[in-house]
Amino acid sequence: ALSLAVQSAAMDSATLDKAAQLRDQALTSDQAYKLLESLTTEVGPRLAGSDKELEAIEWAKTKFREMGFDKVWTEPVKVKQWQRLSESAAVIAPFTQPLQISTLGHSVSTPPGGATGEIAHFATLEALEKASPGEVKDKIVFISNRMHRHKTGSGYGPAVRARGEGASIAGAMGAKALLIRSIGTDSHRLPHTGVLRYDEDKPKIAAAALSNPDADLLERMLERGNPVSLTVNIQTRDKGEVEVANVIGEIQGRTKPDEVVLLGAHLDSWDLGTGAVDDGAGVALTMAAANLIQDSLKQRPYRTIRVVLFAAEEVGLVGAKAYAAAHQDDMDKHIIGAESDFGAGPVWALSAKVGAQALPVIDSMAQLMGALGVVRSDSIASGGPDVGQMVKLGMPAVDLMQDGTDYFDLHHTADDTLDKVDPKALQQNLAAWTVFAYLAAQWPGSFR
Amino acid sequence: ALSLAVQSAAMDSATLDKAAQLRDQALTSDQAYKLLESLTTEVGPRLAGSDKELEAIEWAKTKFREMGFDKVWTEPVKVKQWQRLSESAAVIAPFTQPLQISTLGHSVSTPPGGATGEIAHFATLEALEKASPGEVKDKIVFISNRMHRHKTGSGYGPAVRARGEGASIAGAMGAKALLIRSIGTDSHRLPHTGVLRYDEDKPKIAAAALSNPDADLLERMLERGNPVSLTVNIQTRDKGEVEVANVIGEIQGRTKPDEVVLLGAHLDSWDLGTGAVDDGAGVALTMAAANLIQDSLKQRPYRTIRVVLFAAEEVGLVGAKAYAAAHQDDMDKHIIGAESDFGAGPVWALSAKVGAQALPVIDSMAQLMGALGVVRSDSIASGGPDVGQMVKLGMPAVDLMQDGTDYFDLHHTADDTLDKVDPKALQQNLAAWTVFAYLAAQWPGSFR
Ligand SMILES: [Zn+2]
Ligand SMILES: [Zn+2]
Ligand SMILES: [Zn+2]
Ligand SMILES: [Zn+2]
Repeated sequence: ALSLAVQSAAMDSATLDKAAQLRDQALTSDQAYKLLESLTTEVGPRLAGSDKELEAIEWAKTKFREMGFDKVWTEPVKVKQWQRLSESAAVIAPFTQPLQISTLGHSVSTPPGGATGEIAHFATLEALEKASPGEVKDKIVFISNRMHRHKTGSGYGPAVRARGEGASIAGAMGAKALLIRSIGTDSHRLPHTGVLRYDEDKPKIAAAALSNPDADLLERMLERGNPVSLTVNIQTRDKGEVEVANVIGEIQGRTKPDEVVLLGAHLDSWDLGTGAVDDGAGVALTMAAANLIQDSLKQRPYRTIRVVLFAAEEVGLVGAKAYAAAHQDDMDKHIIGAESDFGAGPVWALSAKVGAQALPVIDSMAQLMGALGVVRSDSIASGGPDVGQMVKLGMPAVDLMQDGTDYFDLHHTADDTLDKVDPKALQQNLAAWTVFAYLAAQWPGSFR
Repeated sequence: ALSLAVQSAAMDSATLDKAAQLRDQALTSDQAYKLLESLTTEVGPRLAGSDKELEAIEWAKTKFREMGFDKVWTEPVKVKQWQRLSESAAVIAPFTQPLQISTLGHSVSTPPGGATGEIAHFATLEALEKASPGEVKDKIVFISNRMHRHKTGSGYGPAVRARGEGASIAGAMGAKALLIRSIGTDSHRLPHTGVLRYDEDKPKIAAAALSNPDADLLERMLERGNPVSLTVNIQTRDKGEVEVANVIGEIQGRTKPDEVVLLGAHLDSWDLGTGAVDDGAGVALTMAAANLIQDSLKQRPYRTIRVVLFAAEEVGLVGAKAYAAAHQDDMDKHIIGAESDFGAGPVWALSAKVGAQALPVIDSMAQLMGALGVVRSDSIASGGPDVGQMVKLGMPAVDLMQDGTDYFDLHHTADDTLDKVDPKALQQNLAAWTVFAYLAAQWPGSFR
């Protein structure tokens, strides 16, 4: 931690005091929870490209306006209208049992009567890649790799390749369908969906995730040494492209309105739950943080605070890529950004990707967040999936790193609902976000 | 606790030593877990009256024979062949959201296109009973009462009336369908099914349980003060009566083969999970306890140990009632009984319903179970749902009381799967059951 002398070189003490006041006010604010309650109750699931995403966009515009944001607008984004119609699976030999599956986003359908075949079992995607086509042809591939639990979510990256790439790899080898163990850390009969990516030059096969207990069951059956056969019926629909939108609300800067502090989250969710932790919490937090600053101060901060609710994050960062493309010419006016898209667990660390001259400001932020249990991390901030698209274009960023120990219990399942959010943790998040947004908007220097 | 002098008046020390040896052997036995793994993997869900219940009966007969039980037989039981076909529900106004429901056992269907109507909301079944028909007619009744968590499961009784009786009460008032908050303590999107009972002289309406998060959602919508409308489509089938069976395996007594110590559990389960905690654990424990005694001793105990795996417990104790009727003339030869049907949590107390002269034996059992963390409870044993039918006819009983704190998180849901069972807790149960069964079979006195 820096000495107070160094800090005051970076930030004047009146600003720091004000930030501390905002932080403490956030700890008693129910605004983020109320926004989240409204979004999950009145809109609910908001699949990218669905009518429900359009409904969420209207919800967000209305809320921004009701809260008195200075500017509210949308920026159009095109996305595929993919829909889950039905899904079922069952073991048919040597035993008979139904299986709980969720189709992966953008999956094609099986034939109308389903796909039936023996399991070709692989412990990992890497093992599948090394298999000979003869082991896979006309079979139903099952990848049983289990995601590991970690505060930082570090188990996700290694496991999720099976979801993203598995279908094309198995399809190229002649498989009839792909089943993966859910990319998730819980042990409930609620499979984890998520998008897959097809190679356009490879055969497309239907793909779904099994809940962890169902994947355990298949493994136990396979351990007995005899072939295990399944039937899988997945029906989906692709209705072509539709226009959705990023929704943007701004608190305009008093002296530097063209300089933007960007707070990001994504408004779309998967269709199974109500998107409370992914990413309703981020939507609610970022909206409430900007609004708290606006409502609590006599004057606007120097810089503009812009909340961007990205469209269609779940199916390939579609809204964020569109925003980055639309704003590449004014990216230099994007002073710094951050994203909340890792659930509703408490913030425990602050990391940054900023120029050396701005480090004392980041340290000041961390010191003010210390009362919230936040430590200064020396890892390099990524900006998160959406805001990271702007970081690629040179925008500085911080990560308000959340405790994600339980995040992947809920992630992309039907269980992602409001009851999973601790209102106290949401207040702690709001407090940290308020400190970040206010100091970034008020400090006159460059973060680049 | 009694002094050793009093104990030895009841039981000779060689028998007590042998019981302690059996107990300690049980703590390292994987037999109960292996049986449970086999039942949940190779059979899985085994709904009363279904082909899967018949499959489970074959499984049990085969296992009893493989383990070398002295006698294995079945006793026929008639049960209704009810099936869940499909179920869906959604809020259609003022918001639109899908709801997770599970049809209650023995529910009739809605009309083919579903039932649509406004919610008539009642906090409890008692509130519904006090309503005027005008508040209910042509509506969809929603009872939102929440079950409370308790080690003994004491929250179940008060809450479960809504499931058993709600449909006929609402039907008599002209409701189109009934939705209840799940009778369960978890907060997952996995509704809890269970049987309902129709009054034959009242209109029959379809009924289902909402998961707890879905019930919360409806409550939040209703709190906004405007009418909330739903559509509910439930399709079921009743294929008439079918013959299933209680499966019975015996270790025959050396000197008093006609005197029976009865160990009970139920072999059927609901169709959603694989019936691991309800009641696969009980099935596995009772089979394994008798088998451990048989395999570990040079000679059989004096009395017969009879394991009865009851049919169709879930739909009205059908197998247990049939057993009680078939055996009422030899009930005096049923020396004492116990049932395991409260999951796979550890045994924490032993209660009894026996004559005063037998209390020292029960105290000896409790003392031997003390090493397992079991205390002597002075509550009166019920015998459990199935074995309780024989207790009504005068059979003495003990309850090996399990910690059911988490039982109603899983009870009658898709989440009732093997991963929820702690193998160590199963061994602790097995140890307690072995002590009970051995001492009851070896003590020469009467428990009546
Ligand atoms: Zn997200
Ligand atoms: Zn996501
Ligand atoms: Zn039971
Ligand atoms: Zn039950």
